Amino acid sequence: MSGFDLPRRLVAEALGTGLLVAAVVGSGIMAENLTKDIALALLANTLATGAILVVLIASLGPISGAHFNPAVTAIFALKRELSWNEALLYVSAQIIGGIGGTLIAHAMFALPLLDASLKIRTGGAQWFAEGVAAFGLVTTILAGMRFNRTAIPWLVGLYIVAAYWFTASTSFANPAVAIARSLTNTFSGIRPHDLPGFIAAELTGAVAAYALLGWLLQSNSEKISNN
Amino acid sequence: MSGFDLPRRLVAEALGTGLLVAAVVGSGIMAENLTKDIALALLANTLATGAILVVLIASLGPISGAHFNPAVTAIFALKRELSWNEALLYVSAQIIGGIGGTLIAHAMFALPLLDASLKIRTGGAQWFAEGVAAFGLVTTILAGMRFNRTAIPWLVGLYIVAAYWFTASTSFANPAVAIARSLTNTFSGIRPHDLPGFIAAELTGAVAAYALLGWLLQSNSEKISNN
Amino acid sequence: MSGFDLPRRLVAEALGTGLLVAAVVGSGIMAENLTKDIALALLANTLATGAILVVLIASLGPISGAHFNPAVTAIFALKRELSWNEALLYVSAQIIGGIGGTLIAHAMFALPLLDASLKIRTGGAQWFAEGVAAFGLVTTILAGMRFNRTAIPWLVGLYIVAAYWFTASTSFANPAVAIARSLTNTFSGIRPHDLPGFIAAELTGAVAAYALLGWLLQSNSEKISNN
Amino acid sequence: MSGFDLPRRLVAEALGTGLLVAAVVGSGIMAENLTKDIALALLANTLATGAILVVLIASLGPISGAHFNPAVTAIFALKRELSWNEALLYVSAQIIGGIGGTLIAHAMFALPLLDASLKIRTGGAQWFAEGVAAFGLVTTILAGMRFNRTAIPWLVGLYIVAAYWFTASTSFANPAVAIARSLTNTFSGIRPHDLPGFIAAELTGAVAAYALLGWLLQSNSEKISNN
Repeated sequence: MSGFDLPRRLVAEALGTGLLVAAVVGSGIMAENLTKDIALALLANTLATGAILVVLIASLGPISGAHFNPAVTAIFALKRELSWNEALLYVSAQIIGGIGGTLIAHAMFALPLLDASLKIRTGGAQWFAEGVAAFGLVTTILAGMRFNRTAIPWLVGLYIVAAYWFTASTSFANPAVAIARSLTNTFSGIRPHDLPGFIAAELTGAVAAYALLGWLLQSNSEKISNN
Repeated sequence: MSGFDLPRRLVAEALGTGLLVAAVVGSGIMAENLTKDIALALLANTLATGAILVVLIASLGPISGAHFNPAVTAIFALKRELSWNEALLYVSAQIIGGIGGTLIAHAMFALPLLDASLKIRTGGAQWFAEGVAAFGLVTTILAGMRFNRTAIPWLVGLYIVAAYWFTASTSFANPAVAIARSLTNTFSGIRPHDLPGFIAAELTGAVAAYALLGWLLQSNSEKISNN
Repeated sequence: MSGFDLPRRLVAEALGTGLLVAAVVGSGIMAENLTKDIALALLANTLATGAILVVLIASLGPISGAHFNPAVTAIFALKRELSWNEALLYVSAQIIGGIGGTLIAHAMFALPLLDASLKIRTGGAQWFAEGVAAFGLVTTILAGMRFNRTAIPWLVGLYIVAAYWFTASTSFANPAVAIARSLTNTFSGIRPHDLPGFIAAELTGAVAAYALLGWLLQSNSEKISNN
Repeated sequence: MSGFDLPRRLVAEALGTGLLVAAVVGSGIMAENLTKDIALALLANTLATGAILVVLIASLGPISGAHFNPAVTAIFALKRELSWNEALLYVSAQIIGGIGGTLIAHAMFALPLLDASLKIRTGGAQWFAEGVAAFGLVTTILAGMRFNRTAIPWLVGLYIVAAYWFTASTSFANPAVAIARSLTNTFSGIRPHDLPGFIAAELTGAVAAYALLGWLLQSNSEKISNN
């Protein structure tokens, strides 16, 4: 238990997801405005995303756990650290906050407030990449919770920095952020039609990591104490 | 109380704001000299600014609190951690130090020592962006003070790295730095005429964060102990 | 002893080496797809590699030690922190995991699953560079184990960030990763024919560091207690 | 006292300065080979230098203090934490190690082992920039020693990342490294003829920081206990 009541936790989830999406979408718009080199644009997008993740998880983690991500919330519900009712509220707050983040980014850059993306992101390779992305993210979080809680903001930020580049999908790895990104027709967008494939892949990767880590993180003393 | 007398605290604020501005302005000049790609120039400007922020806050924070920013000083006065008289002296030291930073940057690059900027930064979208920038900065600081004081230099540096890219205004978020940047007609400048709009937006964003965080950071035990 | 049984430690070595290779190879493919500037591509490759190293060493280090590298495993066997039998199993897990990482990267980017590299990396200067790269890596690890264990993930990640640029070979410094990279004909590849020279250089550099640090890390009190 | 004997401390200074110079010079050569954009080359040079500084100071600091810099050694002698005899030996080790670093970088890139630089770096603005660079470096070190010793490797690395960009001289800030860089006619070189001006500026900036910080870091309780 975090010591904060549910309304504050839900506001923290909405605020954090909103600022995360504002950073992802906003930095993509800025980068696209300033350069024609797509690698350079993705590099700026990467740094802004990684940096804000460290800040938001460190700032809001003690209040709500700083999931900002329905796939992560689902894992915490599977671990029974959150009831499924709370999880549903968390996910709602994340989706609402995320869409708010897109609105804020568009308002800052004087763009239409919502604008469905036309960017195609689909197919088996993209789905596999999203699965790998979410697998790695959940692995990072579960190992961090086990071995080094204070480092989690850093590890998640650094993981996403890497995953923006090594997964072919640029690692959305987050259904709420994916939904919010479907509403911006800019650098970081995704066609709404392509959301189901991405979200299914993300949840599959997250659950796969949950299953593997459940076995991998079991030390000798835990095995004995379980007998 | 920091254990350092007021003169030392004021020198720390002036020195820190001066080196911060020297880094912001100087790295902008260097970058503009070396490349025609504006995204690359902003990337270098971002790294230099984020890096020096971590260094200056860690180095001078134990002396003066390392505000380097009238909007931050105002929040500390609202929190009654600083008297309004001290706050006025802090802000004066920040403005003087900041202008000194512009002078130093110009001297290092053999430019005229002061030169009013011609860069237009105005309009509702820019002001909204500056409000978001300061909102995020104060949120980061207040949450950091509550949950993880030793990480504050890092969190502030990383926040500004992200905000340089995701806010359309490149996140000045600091009235003293904005004043100092109005006196350089280089990469990081802002037209003196546009200062009032920026400063008003920054103070508004800072106060909004102060209000929200005052509620958000109240844990269950605090609510009980307040009864 | 890590408190984890050998099967889990071997899975951790295979998983970590696999994700490391997926990040190295995948980010190289992504970068090559997005820009024609090779320095920019290497910069993205560098950030992804450094970031994932911090994450993987912090996440899996408490299970297996997070070697992910036969040259490092050999040093631990020399230090008698691992039996040579265990070392052989570690190296096997690293090689299998590394090749798996190449497969995963290729699948994410919809490329043929394995494809021998044609990139020539050979000659005395390259071998010397690889020796320096591995010397620096083992120096970083041995000094980190002596003075600051919790910082090791960061120090190794940062060392590789630097070494990607300052060694003429871009610092493979890892026989298992080199083998995996021989199976991708993309940015980060190496011709299979050039593997023996690289691997010999890496082992030589690692052993040189082990010898020098064995002397350098001996403090006055240790010398006395040895008498 | 570090607990390590003088020979080991001198080897640590030579090794550290050597690897630092190898990283500075080597990454400059690599960057110049890969791109025509000078800002991008300096960015890669910056990352490699900042990263290796963190690694080397963390790895060798507990042995020798990790000065790697005659200006820093002079400040420690002024503070009487080192005798002037020891300081002279430190400086000799740094110069020899630094030149060794240039040799190593050239050997890795198959260049002539030593080659006097033709790059002109002189004049009042450059000297002022070098003075500011060394002032900031010594300020960072002295404040770090006072408030947060374990963060010093990070603070020095980040300071140099910023200073590469905000000082017009790209912040040599180190006489031993400057001497070593006069022997490479590549990206990071400096004409031997320009060394005296740079070194004088560096020592002046270092002493200025020492004087200011001697006053600034004196807390109220220290003033009382001095009476």
